[in-house]
Amino acid sequence: MSETNAIGHPVLKPKTPVPSDIEVSQQIVKEVGLLDIPTLAKEAGIQDDELYPWGISKAKVSLAIKDRLKDSPDGNYVVVTGINPTPLGEGKSTTTIGLAQALGATLGKKCFACIRQPSQGPTFGIKGGAAGGGYAQVVPMEEFNLHLTGDIHAVTAANNLLAAAIDTRLFHEDSQSDEALFRRLCPNNKDFSAVMKRRLVKLGIDPNKKPNELTDGEKSKFARLDFDKNTITWQRVLDTCDRHLRKVQVGVGPKETIKPRGTEPGTPRVQHDRATGFDITVASEVMAVLALATDLADLREKLGAMVVGYSKSGMPITADDLGCGGALTVLMKDALMPTLMQTVERTPVLVHAGPFANIATGNSSIVADEIALKLVGEDGFVVSEAGFGADIGMEKFFNIKCRYSGLKPKCAVIVATVRALKMHGGGPAVSAGKPLASEYVDENTDLVEMGVANLVKHIENAKKFGVNVVVAINKFKTDTDAEIEIVRKASIEAGAYDAVMSNHWAEGGAGAANLAIAVQKACETNDAANFKFLYDVEKSIKEKVETISKEIYGADGVDFSDLAEQQIAQYEKAGFGNLPICIAKTQYSFSCDASAKGVPTGHRITVREIRSCAGAGFLYPICGDIMTIPGLPTRPGFYDVDINVETGEVLGLF
Amino acid sequence: MSETNAIGHPVLKPKTPVPSDIEVSQQIVKEVGLLDIPTLAKEAGIQDDELYPWGISKAKVSLAIKDRLKDSPDGNYVVVTGINPTPLGEGKSTTTIGLAQALGATLGKKCFACIRQPSQGPTFGIKGGAAGGGYAQVVPMEEFNLHLTGDIHAVTAANNLLAAAIDTRLFHEDSQSDEALFRRLCPNNKDFSAVMKRRLVKLGIDPNKKPNELTDGEKSKFARLDFDKNTITWQRVLDTCDRHLRKVQVGVGPKETIKPRGTEPGTPRVQHDRATGFDITVASEVMAVLALATDLADLREKLGAMVVGYSKSGMPITADDLGCGGALTVLMKDALMPTLMQTVERTPVLVHAGPFANIATGNSSIVADEIALKLVGEDGFVVSEAGFGADIGMEKFFNIKCRYSGLKPKCAVIVATVRALKMHGGGPAVSAGKPLASEYVDENTDLVEMGVANLVKHIENAKKFGVNVVVAINKFKTDTDAEIEIVRKASIEAGAYDAVMSNHWAEGGAGAANLAIAVQKACETNDAANFKFLYDVEKSIKEKVETISKEIYGADGVDFSDLAEQQIAQYEKAGFGNLPICIAKTQYSFSCDASAKGVPTGHRITVREIRSCAGAGFLYPICGDIMTIPGLPTRPGFYDVDINVETGEVLGLF
Repeated sequence: MSETNAIGHPVLKPKTPVPSDIEVSQQIVKEVGLLDIPTLAKEAGIQDDELYPWGISKAKVSLAIKDRLKDSPDGNYVVVTGINPTPLGEGKSTTTIGLAQALGATLGKKCFACIRQPSQGPTFGIKGGAAGGGYAQVVPMEEFNLHLTGDIHAVTAANNLLAAAIDTRLFHEDSQSDEALFRRLCPNNKDFSAVMKRRLVKLGIDPNKKPNELTDGEKSKFARLDFDKNTITWQRVLDTCDRHLRKVQVGVGPKETIKPRGTEPGTPRVQHDRATGFDITVASEVMAVLALATDLADLREKLGAMVVGYSKSGMPITADDLGCGGALTVLMKDALMPTLMQTVERTPVLVHAGPFANIATGNSSIVADEIALKLVGEDGFVVSEAGFGADIGMEKFFNIKCRYSGLKPKCAVIVATVRALKMHGGGPAVSAGKPLASEYVDENTDLVEMGVANLVKHIENAKKFGVNVVVAINKFKTDTDAEIEIVRKASIEAGAYDAVMSNHWAEGGAGAANLAIAVQKACETNDAANFKFLYDVEKSIKEKVETISKEIYGADGVDFSDLAEQQIAQYEKAGFGNLPICIAKTQYSFSCDASAKGVPTGHRITVREIRSCAGAGFLYPICGDIMTIPGLPTRPGFYDVDINVETGEVLGLF
Repeated sequence: MSETNAIGHPVLKPKTPVPSDIEVSQQIVKEVGLLDIPTLAKEAGIQDDELYPWGISKAKVSLAIKDRLKDSPDGNYVVVTGINPTPLGEGKSTTTIGLAQALGATLGKKCFACIRQPSQGPTFGIKGGAAGGGYAQVVPMEEFNLHLTGDIHAVTAANNLLAAAIDTRLFHEDSQSDEALFRRLCPNNKDFSAVMKRRLVKLGIDPNKKPNELTDGEKSKFARLDFDKNTITWQRVLDTCDRHLRKVQVGVGPKETIKPRGTEPGTPRVQHDRATGFDITVASEVMAVLALATDLADLREKLGAMVVGYSKSGMPITADDLGCGGALTVLMKDALMPTLMQTVERTPVLVHAGPFANIATGNSSIVADEIALKLVGEDGFVVSEAGFGADIGMEKFFNIKCRYSGLKPKCAVIVATVRALKMHGGGPAVSAGKPLASEYVDENTDLVEMGVANLVKHIENAKKFGVNVVVAINKFKTDTDAEIEIVRKASIEAGAYDAVMSNHWAEGGAGAANLAIAVQKACETNDAANFKFLYDVEKSIKEKVETISKEIYGADGVDFSDLAEQQIAQYEKAGFGNLPICIAKTQYSFSCDASAKGVPTGHRITVREIRSCAGAGFLYPICGDIMTIPGLPTRPGFYDVDINVETGEVLGLF
């Protein structure tokens, strides 16, 4: 028998040097073997009837677990976040997985990692996969990075059904009289469907009437959504890096022409085209809804409430107004179940939802965290990763995700590397394909001293939410003791509970044992009741934006464009004024200037416009150029991806 | 213990009147229960390590079964096809499932049904689901109709990765010099990847050279695909009925501009936009490849060989030239495994691939049929459905699918209804929402006598392939004995082995017992060696089109447009002249005129253009208007789709 770890599974035997991510993943699968999913689930406390196997390395997990364990105490809730990212990479996902391995496989605690499903587009582009790295990985990495259990595909399908419903409705409304529209919606006096009754209620019409019992006025109000086309914000999506779809003209075909309603016979047909665009699927509001929904009923309500545009009289037009809310929910019902996988050390991982971290929350799902917290129980740990740096991902984790879930984190782990802090301290720019400047390779305590301010500000920010902060200094081989000591000392001085060097990438959980012990103590010494939000949602939209900008970004104030001012008025009128705020800005700086490293001061936040995710439940002010569909380089990652046709083994994913 | 059927499972207890399809499906699941998938698989002869559960009602099945049983005899191979379809519906899928239930659950034979995965788009539009109907259904129907195991989503992802690769490459080729392109494809003299070496071999360049060892001329040839943009046929796809995507202008955004290569400094940037379009996913060549691939290696070759357009010098440009073939295969590797489900009587069903029946073969996959034929063994039956009428689906099943698989069917079942034959006999047009004309409700032997000619021609056609023909007269309650007898008699006179009335929709397998017995005898009395193709692929493209047109469609001859003539020359030059032919024409008539019911004579086939699926392995002449993305009506099916948020039950699918 081989040596076993604290949870009774084979001890990880890392190789030196650490092979590529896909090689590590495939070696673990071949040489050690995956823990079969039913056993993994059983050890995690999941019952047979709560598990839906999905191939041999993945399973979906039923939300029935929440009900079964509703009276059980939650485990310790830990969020992993980071300093403002740099091109050098900080290893946030890798630390999330490594910390979970340390808590689970090394310390023997009940533990889950909860992470986002990555977009498949970038897997074939520049970025590559997102399963962690080295010996702190979710395996098999190719299963994690491709398709998974189809949730992103379900989002694509749902988003695009709604998009087709919009253009179809415009097509019919632009060519048909109110009477004809109504007759086609309720042919032969066919009963109103459930989703139609929702619209009747919204319009103040008795939903128990038969179609022919409506007055002509009521029929018109019901049948004509009367879009103000300039307000339509709903776009189509694909999970592909396809820059040519950012802006498109649709409806330019020979059959997409109409005779505009009310025109004289013989009037020439006109083209029914429209300027619109595509986003990458993870930027869809449907994905944001998936991340924030708490159960099937909530999913149904949120999807139906998504606003796609406004009528000419300023009324929000929702997915339910278009008759889609039920169908969207049906398309998303399986996607609502998180996916169970495992780390290289057989720690359970829930992978679920992957909303963009700028225009959405950038956090994995509420339901995955809820399920995991119940399963690990009072003494266990759930390590949940937040996207981007702590100014964005963590702030949204606390103020939006935790507000909707009611869950109370005890500890924030802020990931930093010496190299990245050097860049925040004024180190030279880095460009792909060129050797790294000596500042990053040799000891340079001055740059670390200057750059650590970025970390310090994030620590101070986290503490405003009442959590204990543990800094994870993600080890790189060129780091010196003196450099690490600067980071440690500054962290403690800034109020961190602890700051610990961690080497999980090379060593797995064993390399993060000290980090795990620090996190454990940080949770033991904090009461979840200390957790608090930064702002009251009942404050005005402007006050909320200003609070985040000043308290988190260190800005002097906020400037709202005229458009933003108009939108604020529109949202307050529509009843969206009390939604939490999800600021879309660059992740590379506390400010709106991506090049402003360290801790910029004296800056102001400019809100160009404010968009709404009324279904998901937040408003997102746009503070900078936000790119919602990446492009591909001349030699994308896919050039190296292939398959061994004899063994089925995937090659070249990274 | 309840009564059991011939395979030891509960006897079906049909209700009268037959509830809606989704009600039947949900009642079976709730009241009888599904057979658990591992048991279903085991009873079908699938080993544990060949099964990949996918939720609780579906599993993927490994192609390793083909290897394990390669020396076992195949079962009896039966194709289900039909007369030219009419708006009245003939029930081909329902008959396929009902016949499989009869052979399996009623007669106790080893039996599989093999059917296509339906496109999800039409499920929410006009058409609804495609799981069969009544008591001849695949269950759960909502699982069958939605997402299934993600194969169509994988096709979408693969198709669109290739589309993004095309526009990205155009973007870079239009702005970069040969030298810059090559440098970006092989940065820092990085080795050629496997897929790049394929292109080197195609160009006659030694693939073992390092990038910097190529001559400047070789570098240019390698790096510049040099698209003739007018020849690009590859479109993007979505599994959504979205007519506004039929024709789109992409690349109209402010960032999709280029400085054309070779222009002077200061030259204004130009928009890098392009007219293109979307198809519904099942119309993608990737789907056609999935249906025709015989194993992983074949899938890799076919995907890499897909031609997306031609260079200015007339050279075909493939997915491999774009560096995509390996990545596409990786995206499609799970999709290559058929999905196992079950009928309401627990007969195993393999659902796999769903290519369009006009521009592609309209048949489910080769690998599903191969696996099923091995599993049922010599005395067993595989009932495989072909799309559209026998002039299209059956002809392609025999001439294309069976040619690539090498499998030899013994029997063709041609489905007809009395009502549909009446329409072929000159019965009045049918329009939705209006009561059916009396001709269809009351006995009218004259119309049946005249309309049966359509069936007779299909029987004669089928016999040209050396199979026995059994006519399934799919019972409708208004049919009279005299009407059925006309059909029976004409069928036998035309050379059918038998013609049998069947009532599986209302009664399940028991209602199709006589049909099953006839099919069994038809297989026993025919030798698979009798099976033959209609044409030799080595004949010229024109001869092949003419053979199909004359022999199957009864046409006097074929007219090729100038464009088609040019394309024929191009394909013969490119080495595609020996591919089988997949004619794209209306399914409603033997001719190209959808309104020509019965058996039109004296007509000619007009080939407007000929497109190629060089990867999938066929040429498709376009003979009429082919619509590759349906639209939605004013009240699409999705208006009635909803979910019971307490039970998770899907409502309103049809």
